[in-house]
Amino acid sequence: MSKFWNKKTNEIEAYVAGEQPKTDCKLVKLNTNENPYSPSKECEKVLKEFDIQELRLYPDTDSTIVRDAVAKITGLERGNVFVGNGSDEVLAICWQAFFEKKYNTNLGVLVPEVSYSFYPVYAQNYDTRLIKIPLGEDLSIDPDDFCVRENCGVAIANPNAPTSIAMPIADIERILQANPDSVVIIDEAYAAFKTKYESAAELVNKYPNLVVVQTLSKSYGLAGLRVGYAVASKELIEGMIKIRDSFNSYPVDRIAQKVAAAAILDVENYEINRLALIGTRTNAMAEFRKMGFFVPESSANFIFVKPPVEITAESLYNKLRQKGILVRYFNKPIVKEFLRISIGTDEEMSIIVEAIKEELKNA
Amino acid sequence: MSKFWNKKTNEIEAYVAGEQPKTDCKLVKLNTNENPYSPSKECEKVLKEFDIQELRLYPDTDSTIVRDAVAKITGLERGNVFVGNGSDEVLAICWQAFFEKKYNTNLGVLVPEVSYSFYPVYAQNYDTRLIKIPLGEDLSIDPDDFCVRENCGVAIANPNAPTSIAMPIADIERILQANPDSVVIIDEAYAAFKTKYESAAELVNKYPNLVVVQTLSKSYGLAGLRVGYAVASKELIEGMIKIRDSFNSYPVDRIAQKVAAAAILDVENYEINRLALIGTRTNAMAEFRKMGFFVPESSANFIFVKPPVEITAESLYNKLRQKGILVRYFNKPIVKEFLRISIGTDEEMSIIVEAIKEELKNA
Repeated sequence: MSKFWNKKTNEIEAYVAGEQPKTDCKLVKLNTNENPYSPSKECEKVLKEFDIQELRLYPDTDSTIVRDAVAKITGLERGNVFVGNGSDEVLAICWQAFFEKKYNTNLGVLVPEVSYSFYPVYAQNYDTRLIKIPLGEDLSIDPDDFCVRENCGVAIANPNAPTSIAMPIADIERILQANPDSVVIIDEAYAAFKTKYESAAELVNKYPNLVVVQTLSKSYGLAGLRVGYAVASKELIEGMIKIRDSFNSYPVDRIAQKVAAAAILDVENYEINRLALIGTRTNAMAEFRKMGFFVPESSANFIFVKPPVEITAESLYNKLRQKGILVRYFNKPIVKEFLRISIGTDEEMSIIVEAIKEELKNA
Repeated sequence: MSKFWNKKTNEIEAYVAGEQPKTDCKLVKLNTNENPYSPSKECEKVLKEFDIQELRLYPDTDSTIVRDAVAKITGLERGNVFVGNGSDEVLAICWQAFFEKKYNTNLGVLVPEVSYSFYPVYAQNYDTRLIKIPLGEDLSIDPDDFCVRENCGVAIANPNAPTSIAMPIADIERILQANPDSVVIIDEAYAAFKTKYESAAELVNKYPNLVVVQTLSKSYGLAGLRVGYAVASKELIEGMIKIRDSFNSYPVDRIAQKVAAAAILDVENYEINRLALIGTRTNAMAEFRKMGFFVPESSANFIFVKPPVEITAESLYNKLRQKGILVRYFNKPIVKEFLRISIGTDEEMSIIVEAIKEELKNA
């Protein structure tokens, strides 16, 4: 609290990001869904060749080279692409551009009750009502629940976080059809890790109310670069540009634009890393189930696991931490019985599995 | 207009940034106040040595290495520094953190009537009332005008843009004393170019209501890097962090953090470039006055000039453009009689002066 903060600042509960340890001591870091594999070699080339003199001049506000790279891999046009400083910024801009403020409507934005924990923060920050739709007992999202309520918008992470469960594109399409007057955000931060890749991006030309948000943080191994993007109808992209230009006209720097474009165009590296990660995840899910964990079928680069009765999630989180293994624990209803564990290398997954076996033995 | 945009998006008038030409053809670009001189050589070193593997991991949310660099050059502490994705983002965060929304107060934010044209956009975007305080006939700001009105905040660019005129720190101090319950933003984007350098940063430990915003875009020649910062009391910085974490927890990427810290710590390069620019500006002001322009005393890296009666600002703007010389023209009351011309190299300034002489001859 401060007399200098305004009402919003005094009241808001900010998002709490996963811990980024500052020490260099050897940690097994499986808490923030980073990619264990290298970014594209093309990124390195871009960086080494970058002419520092370029930095004298402002960047291209629209990140055209990144838009064009995304257009190329999705088969869409430049005007269907918006690029921002990480997908959190892109989501925040969608929220501000499309979802009506509570001063102007009684309607709310539909979100899954358990989902990316930034959504309630955006809702509070941008003065929108939120309507939380409960998950099924198996933690899945029932698309019908998003088809029957009047709303001023829909936001769904697919695969959902932290549950790791994906919804088929056909279900997304049903939600789009049922909400022709609302913007529907499909947050595909983890979509690259679906075993059979599919993206709602393929629906963009069919539904003017769809925004698909993606990030380079997970699938491209570029969490440190801060580039995310959205694909949508040109009408929606223009709205996002308007909001961006009412806040910060140059969100992506010159170096990040070049590195991001190079990464996106290296389709081969993306595919190799994606498949390697999926392989490791398949093994990890089997191992955790063998240890008695409840493990929903993951389509993401993490698994969401509920420990067997011998040990609570919170206690296991702390025990692992003592051993230098970081995972994510959310002390909130429903999810507090689970741990979210990022998929690392095979070696890192062996380390965590062995550590957990030991804890279960001691429990 | 779109039925999918919310009320705000339909209504808002976004900021219009200066043109960033995409062609490589030779232009004399004096329209967006970029620095004609090289960034620090230390930046290049950082870039060449950067390990691409680092990009796998999220950056430090707080940009600690940049905070520490700013703390070092200002004599303040890390907790007095906030780092963002360009000073526009930093200003937007200040606006959201400190200035009360019109739903909660009848008071407004005091700004100079002519100033950085992003302020009215922030006001509209973040639902704050704006009270525009007229400038004097000589385009200067009278500090007394900011000492007598009840308000929920104050924002002043010093030196002011696009007028180029600076206010002494003693006047800033008077404004701070007269507004002990409001946050006062002093936007020092151009402060580096005061002939005798002084910054309101030196008042931070004395006034808990002061935020001083600076950028690396102009004085460090790093417009393409997108790093800006604020220095303020710890109480205000904490409020800014709260708002940042309600929007985008990782605003500055790993490469930008390292390059920015290196630039800030190279005090020598900063000083050399600053003095070179001031020298060129002194000559340019004399030349423009010789040609019959009205030229207020500039403390910035641009001059704000009113052409002699032979030619209008708008017409001169267009003529220069035809010759491949870009300057900034604002088609708005008061300022539409002026051009804002960035200070480039001595050579670039000779080119524009010769071009104008030719136009005046033809007029």
